[in-house]
This record gives sequence, structure tokens and C-alpha cells, in this order.
Amino acid sequence: MRIGELSRRSGVPVPTIKYYVREGLLPAGELTSPNQADYGPGHERRLRLIRVLLEVGGLSLAAIGEVLEAADDPAQPVFKVLGSASEGVPPLGDGEAGPELERAREEVAELVRRRGWQVGDEATAGESLAGVIAALRRIGHGDLVDLMDVYADAAESVAHADLDYVERRVAREDLVESVVVGTVLGEVMFGALRRLAHEEVSFRRYVLPGGGAEAGGEGGVGGVAPAGSEAPEA
Amino acid sequence: MRIGELSRRSGVPVPTIKYYVREGLLPAGELTSPNQADYGPGHERRLRLIRVLLEVGGLSLAAIGEVLEAADDPAQPVFKVLGSASEGVPPLGDGEAGPELERAREEVAELVRRRGWQVGDEATAGESLAGVIAALRRIGHGDLVDLMDVYADAAESVAHADLDYVERRVAREDLVESVVVGTVLGEVMFGALRRLAHEEVSFRRYVLPGGGAEAGGEGGVGGVAPAGSEAPEA
Repeated sequence: MRIGELSRRSGVPVPTIKYYVREGLLPAGELTSPNQADYGPGHERRLRLIRVLLEVGGLSLAAIGEVLEAADDPAQPVFKVLGSASEGVPPLGDGEAGPELERAREEVAELVRRRGWQVGDEATAGESLAGVIAALRRIGHGDLVDLMDVYADAAESVAHADLDYVERRVAREDLVESVVVGTVLGEVMFGALRRLAHEEVSFRRYVLPGGGAEAGGEGGVGGVAPAGSEAPEA
Repeated sequence: MRIGELSRRSGVPVPTIKYYVREGLLPAGELTSPNQADYGPGHERRLRLIRVLLEVGGLSLAAIGEVLEAADDPAQPVFKVLGSASEGVPPLGDGEAGPELERAREEVAELVRRRGWQVGDEATAGESLAGVIAALRRIGHGDLVDLMDVYADAAESVAHADLDYVERRVAREDLVESVVVGTVLGEVMFGALRRLAHEEVSFRRYVLPGGGAEAGGEGGVGGVAPAGSEAPEA
């Protein structure tokens, strides 16, 4: 198909498609004449993937470029691709984080030992985790780090499900795409479910016991009462 | 303290601090003379929070502005603030997603019914979830939606831990900040743990059984073999 049709089918404007080709995110079309190129279903698929990683996954174009480059390189083990998929969040910019970050790295190493996880020290995910821990301590919310084991239990069960999903995909191309999509969109999916679960749990804890608030109205969620108080209306 | 000291203590350049004040993210300092303002520990704390939401949480300045506005308004129930904290990820830009999005919304409503969750139809998290589902189907990865119940189980246990954490904070100001920090940074923390767990689970599934790959080297993770094959080296 011509670029105009690719644009119509994918909903991506022609100048944007050309930009993605120039930036190496999308392979160039096959030239059929000096100024006409032909695009196939692979281009359309790649284009949709780029848009979803950008709009739903929240990755930057630079991060998408790295992920796709890793995905297109058959020499890259799939889980290195996965590492790239996570580069979206930079660790921590400022140098002042030095000693805090060092301590946070030790906490991550300790967590990994405690759980008997077989992961390398230089895992990018571990570095992100250390960055979050250091940031939490820096803003006086270090208590949140105490939840790490509950989070890790949940993460393990999700990871098993993710790998079951990835295993169902057989061709490498498809497999790598699944890893990218699963990592990025799976994270967005989990985040949305966690926020829904926040509403659910807060409803049961604060609205139902008091009995005063009507279910269903205003989203069924009143708000969180501080420890020691009853339901918001009581 | 003067703005120069606030800048030194927080690591945020003076022009950036002034920009945050102009944009309403940070309250203005108290004027002590026509061109000198005084800043307190509250400013420093707020500044660190902004930087962490920006750099670690990945929120845009616009999203941070909305969250902080909600957090500063005592009339806002805490879980509405939480809703704002999640606005960082836009649902789905294009109009073509219409029927798919409608179907995805029904799937979310069905999930909520199935689990007996008490959440409102207009929950922003539900809308994000519908957006992810529609996006997954659009790029041919609808199978990932099948993992939703495993994800939801994990999300529920994390949400219980989150609310236990929030309950420990007593003052509303502190409580609201905990909700914001917990929602945004908790998501980053979970994401990092999930990616670490991917490494761990893939190591146990693909590297250990074959026995051929050396543990510890190269991060201990070889890559994922498609279903039916053995460890990467076999």
C-alpha cells in the first residue's frame, strides 16, 4: 500500500510516519519508483505498536527506539529487550543522591537474597527499584519501603502469569513483541487495577462499616478516614 | 530561608523554583521586603515532592499541578486525589477507538461485577483499564487481557497493604501526601519488582532446568526460549 493508505489505516498522519522512518523506528517502505514507496502489513503493525507504547504505555520516542532496536536484533536475549523496555523511567538525576542510593542498592541486594531470587546485580530493574527506595526516603516516606515484600509476592505471581503468556507465542518476532507489550502495557494494566482495588478496599473499610454512606452514589467512595476515626459521615 | 538557600538545600535551580511558583505548584514565599521572600521547611518538602513525582514517578508538570491542587483542597475526599494522581496516563487519543473502547468498558464492568468490587462506573482507573484493554486488542495482544484476574488478585493484596500504610499517617496533609506518593511511587516500585521477578522466573524456567548456563554470569539470565525448546544453549 502507499503511505496515504497506511496513514488512513493506522490513523497516523503522513508527516509523522515519515518522521518515524527517518528516526529509524519504522523500516522504510520498498521503493517502487524514485518517489513512491510500498508499505505492507508489517509496517501497519509496527506503527500501531509505536502509537500504543507512546500513548498508552507512556514511553518516550527515544525509549521506544531503544526497545524496538533491541527487539529487531536477533542476537539480543529476550530479557535484555525487556530491560530496555523499562528504561523509560530514568533512575535519579542528581548527584546528591549518592549515599542514599548506595544504601538503597544494598536494600535491594538484601531483598533479592532474602527471597532467593536469581537475578544479576546489574539488573536495570534493580537499579530502578533502588532509585525509588532512595527517593521515598528522601521525601520522608521511607515507611512505604516496608511494603516491599507484599509487593514482591504480588509481583512474583504476576510474573508467572506473564511468562505463561509469553510462552504461548512461538515465533521470536512475535515473542519479543509480546515481551515488550506485556512489560509496558501489563504495567499500565496492573496500575489501573491497583487503583480500582484502592477504591474497593477503601469502600469496604470506611464506607460499609459505618453504614451511613449510600453504595453506588458518587462512585461509592467517600474518602479515607485517618486511623482511629469512623466512616466519614460518623 | 532565602530562595538561594532553598535552591541549595533542594538541589532545584532558582529559576525553576520561580517557575513552579508562577505555575502555582509551589506557594509563594512570605515577602519580607519588596524584593525578598522567605521560604520555610514546607516549601522545601513540597519542592522535593514535585521533583520526585516528576523524575521518579514520571508525571508531567500538568499532572503534578492537578494532583497538588486536589491535595491542597480540604473539600476533596482523599480518593478523588488518588484519581487525579492517575491522570498521568491519557486514556486513548484517537476517535477510531470508539466501538473497541465501548466493548472494553463492558469487560471492565464485568470484571468489577465478577469480583464483587464496590467501585463507581465513572472511576478514572476503570477508564484507564478500558483504554489498555482496547489498545491490547487493537495491536493483536488481546490474550494479555486473560491475565486480568491474576493481576487483580495481586492488585487486591497490594491495595490492602497500601491502605494499611496510609492509615498509619494521621494528619490530613500528611495523609494526602501519602496517598499521592504511595499511588505514584508505589506503581514504579511494583513495576521494578515485577521486572526483577520476570528475571527470576525466567531463570528458574529456562536456565536452571537445562543446567548448561552458568548462574551469576551475565546477570544470570539467558533469555526466554519459545515453548517446546530447552534452555538457550541446549
